[in-house]
Amino acid sequence: MNKKIARPLLALACLGLASAASAQLKPEEMIKFRQSGYTFMAWNMGKIKAMAVDDKVPFDAKQVASAANVVAAVANSGLGALFAPGTDNGKGWKETRLKSEFFEKPDEVKEVALNFVKQANELQRVAAGGDKAAIKAQFGETGKACKACHDKFREEEDK
Amino acid sequence: MNKKIARPLLALACLGLASAASAQLKPEEMIKFRQSGYTFMAWNMGKIKAMAVDDKVPFDAKQVASAANVVAAVANSGLGALFAPGTDNGKGWKETRLKSEFFEKPDEVKEVALNFVKQANELQRVAAGGDKAAIKAQFGETGKACKACHDKFREEEDK
Repeated sequence: MNKKIARPLLALACLGLASAASAQLKPEEMIKFRQSGYTFMAWNMGKIKAMAVDDKVPFDAKQVASAANVVAAVANSGLGALFAPGTDNGKGWKETRLKSEFFEKPDEVKEVALNFVKQANELQRVAAGGDKAAIKAQFGETGKACKACHDKFREEEDK
Repeated sequence: MNKKIARPLLALACLGLASAASAQLKPEEMIKFRQSGYTFMAWNMGKIKAMAVDDKVPFDAKQVASAANVVAAVANSGLGALFAPGTDNGKGWKETRLKSEFFEKPDEVKEVALNFVKQANELQRVAAGGDKAAIKAQFGETGKACKACHDKFREEEDK
């Protein structure tokens, strides 16, 4: 294994994200699984936004908490194992939008990944409390954590 | 709303699965979100199987617990809201395999859905304990709950 490949793997291992149980997956399976996780998380972030931020539908504390549980569970699921070197190209459900920079900047990846997990866990904690204003505020922080990674490591939709 | 449509909706509402926050989704979005949830759950079920059932990779209690948290969070996320009448046809990431029987047998849907949630919650509880043999046994029960719905309400892959 050359150094260029080893560094990001090491960074992911430090995060506890590398998983032997996913070592056998093909690149297209990794891409499909991570696209699924992010898409399902997006549905749940959308529900929280509709209920706690946009007031589009009545606030339902139980549904918000359930949605936040999904966000936290996905964030803590070891997604890093689905980002093997080389998977900045390939098709899962659709072509990946992962930028090559992801594998070139392991320290930045670690920073955004750790912050995402932190904010998702805090969202879960706050959502369990049922305080709408606090949930709205923490939803904002979690959204920023998502965006930080998108801005750095995800191509625009019209790639 | 005619009676044929109203009955399954009522059954889902009884399960606490209907969600106002998802009422605005298009059918193809509902299908995409549910396919994402099941696919991401499959990755996590696969990890538990590899570690606790097939002994393909070393057992890691923390990773098993994290995977079980995903399964439970998805099961409790109000998936029923993504099964609006008419969504037995349409394309999310791919064509849906949902059978029309889903909307014709609300009592059976309720039964398999409630058992799935029950088994997923039990898997989460057992996984948190870290007892490999107990996890293996409850993984089997959870798999049966998945299969019960697939057998009744999902077309074979080569539809």
